Amino acid sequence: MMSLEETNRTASYDKAGVDIEAGNRTVGMLKAAVAATHGPEVLSEIGAFGGLYSAEALKSMQNPILVSSTDGVGTKVMLAAQAGRYTVVGQDIVNHCINDILVQGARPLFFLDYFASSKLVPEIVVEVVRGMAQACKESDCALLGGETAEMPGVYHENQFDVAGTIVGVVDRSSLLPKKTITPGDILVGLASSGPHTNGYSLIRRVFADIPLNKGFDELDSTLADALLAPHRNYLPVLSKVLDAGIPKGFAHITGGGFFDNLQRVLPKGCGAILRKDSWAVPPLFKLIQSRGDVDQLEMYKVFNMGIGMVAVVAPAQIDSFQAMISEETWLIGEVILGSAVEIV
Amino acid sequence: MMSLEETNRTASYDKAGVDIEAGNRTVGMLKAAVAATHGPEVLSEIGAFGGLYSAEALKSMQNPILVSSTDGVGTKVMLAAQAGRYTVVGQDIVNHCINDILVQGARPLFFLDYFASSKLVPEIVVEVVRGMAQACKESDCALLGGETAEMPGVYHENQFDVAGTIVGVVDRSSLLPKKTITPGDILVGLASSGPHTNGYSLIRRVFADIPLNKGFDELDSTLADALLAPHRNYLPVLSKVLDAGIPKGFAHITGGGFFDNLQRVLPKGCGAILRKDSWAVPPLFKLIQSRGDVDQLEMYKVFNMGIGMVAVVAPAQIDSFQAMISEETWLIGEVILGSAVEIV
Repeated sequence: MMSLEETNRTASYDKAGVDIEAGNRTVGMLKAAVAATHGPEVLSEIGAFGGLYSAEALKSMQNPILVSSTDGVGTKVMLAAQAGRYTVVGQDIVNHCINDILVQGARPLFFLDYFASSKLVPEIVVEVVRGMAQACKESDCALLGGETAEMPGVYHENQFDVAGTIVGVVDRSSLLPKKTITPGDILVGLASSGPHTNGYSLIRRVFADIPLNKGFDELDSTLADALLAPHRNYLPVLSKVLDAGIPKGFAHITGGGFFDNLQRVLPKGCGAILRKDSWAVPPLFKLIQSRGDVDQLEMYKVFNMGIGMVAVVAPAQIDSFQAMISEETWLIGEVILGSAVEIV
Repeated sequence: MMSLEETNRTASYDKAGVDIEAGNRTVGMLKAAVAATHGPEVLSEIGAFGGLYSAEALKSMQNPILVSSTDGVGTKVMLAAQAGRYTVVGQDIVNHCINDILVQGARPLFFLDYFASSKLVPEIVVEVVRGMAQACKESDCALLGGETAEMPGVYHENQFDVAGTIVGVVDRSSLLPKKTITPGDILVGLASSGPHTNGYSLIRRVFADIPLNKGFDELDSTLADALLAPHRNYLPVLSKVLDAGIPKGFAHITGGGFFDNLQRVLPKGCGAILRKDSWAVPPLFKLIQSRGDVDQLEMYKVFNMGIGMVAVVAPAQIDSFQAMISEETWLIGEVILGSAVEIV
């Protein structure tokens, strides 16, 4: 039997009056990509309606807590449409969601998506879902369902939107942030892969008159390559330190940049100092700032500036933390007495 | 601390540059409505990022299965925008999702939404979320999170879209449809409250030249009242028969009408006969058919024709089923040997 994923998508193709043969071909491609994300927990063989996910593994946890988040990709979808690159959008939405629940210590169980457009182009849906399936598979997350809608009166021509919902789980004893975050704790930064999914309204204004395939010496790539790098998934690199219970908390640097996202992880009575010279801001952000004549503070409010995830770690644990991380990290600041996030 | 729901929404208001005071007022209103859906399972007090839902109750189940579904409201959102009625959209998306997992025997745990628009109007977001909260509360479902996006380049002016994801749970022994569905089983129809969320592209074409506030004698109401009735939630009326394990399966009559949705509940080797004279089709559907000159078969493919949910019940259980249902139901057909759904 087909899972909700495929039945809904098939129905949508029919309704949209798209070439049924092309539709069937693409549904076939989708099925394989989606099925590759299904472990034994996915019980699609016994039901054709909703997505079914066995929760038996949760029974062995002390105090299982489901952690769930819904998100979109924002106006990065417009750049993706302009460049004709769709897989990245699928990776973006999944990885964004994975990072959003990772900051609470949760690991993903399953993901569902919503794709809506002025007109359904099966090849585009396939590319987006292929990106989702790829990102899900990398994190042992089941792509459990999805809905596709064609709404020409709501969406501009050739435009689409993608939203996703993730459900993960964490045992209460491993829930983050911990209440032990205290002045003196170190902020450890992990590299981003680009602007991820934030600041794209500003980015599109700044580069409005530049063709996406233009190369920039300082970027060592085309504009499209730099702007459409997939949102990085931090679960693989952080899995070990999570298992070891080392981080006290994480801030996923998304909308609101360093200020809003660091603030959210800090307990009452704590602020943070961020030392902006402690890491090298990647050339793309400098290019955005100079071309757009953007105020420096504003840059740290809108963009991740090369640091997509910040871990809060006790000073005594820094060595262990860094030893368990298979890439360069930066000590970018510390927790202080106070109530604000300051950049120096 | 604020839950993801409120922090995301607050951030969105800021970014959109909307009147902050108006924004704060509306966030306050939202908080109260959303908080009213939170039982003790919602652990928002211990985390500011994702939505946290305690899964401890699942540990007492034999074989808990999480059932999840994502859906949209379709182009009914355009009519709602035209009529300036937004609460109904929130009720629609929640109830649609509840019904979608109910057909697998699952009861809702929590719901998350995605609201995107060309321009965020706080009053509209509040009305939509108020509708969601109201519908969630009616079904003991927590409104656990949400995301709001403003994307003028993607959405037409004054247009918006709403998607939602529900997560529910069912013990494996209560999973529907049962494998025991067999020729001779009776199809029992439950009344719909209107077209629910299906066929609105056709509806909008049919009534394109009619003002929504026009009254129709045969409708005993204005067009807006008839077309914008909320999608009915079948959980309250079906709760008892579910507990008693009476239905063998359900078909939620949504996109694809009677054909696709009945087909999905039937095992291999079974078809169904639907007797269209066994219930009175409500005047609205007759009006749509006559004004739109729509083929009769097409009507049953697109619309629920007054029957929004169909239960499959063994003949010997019909009396018990009807005795436990506090409203009129109709015996609208039966399961037969075969492979197709036929309307006679």
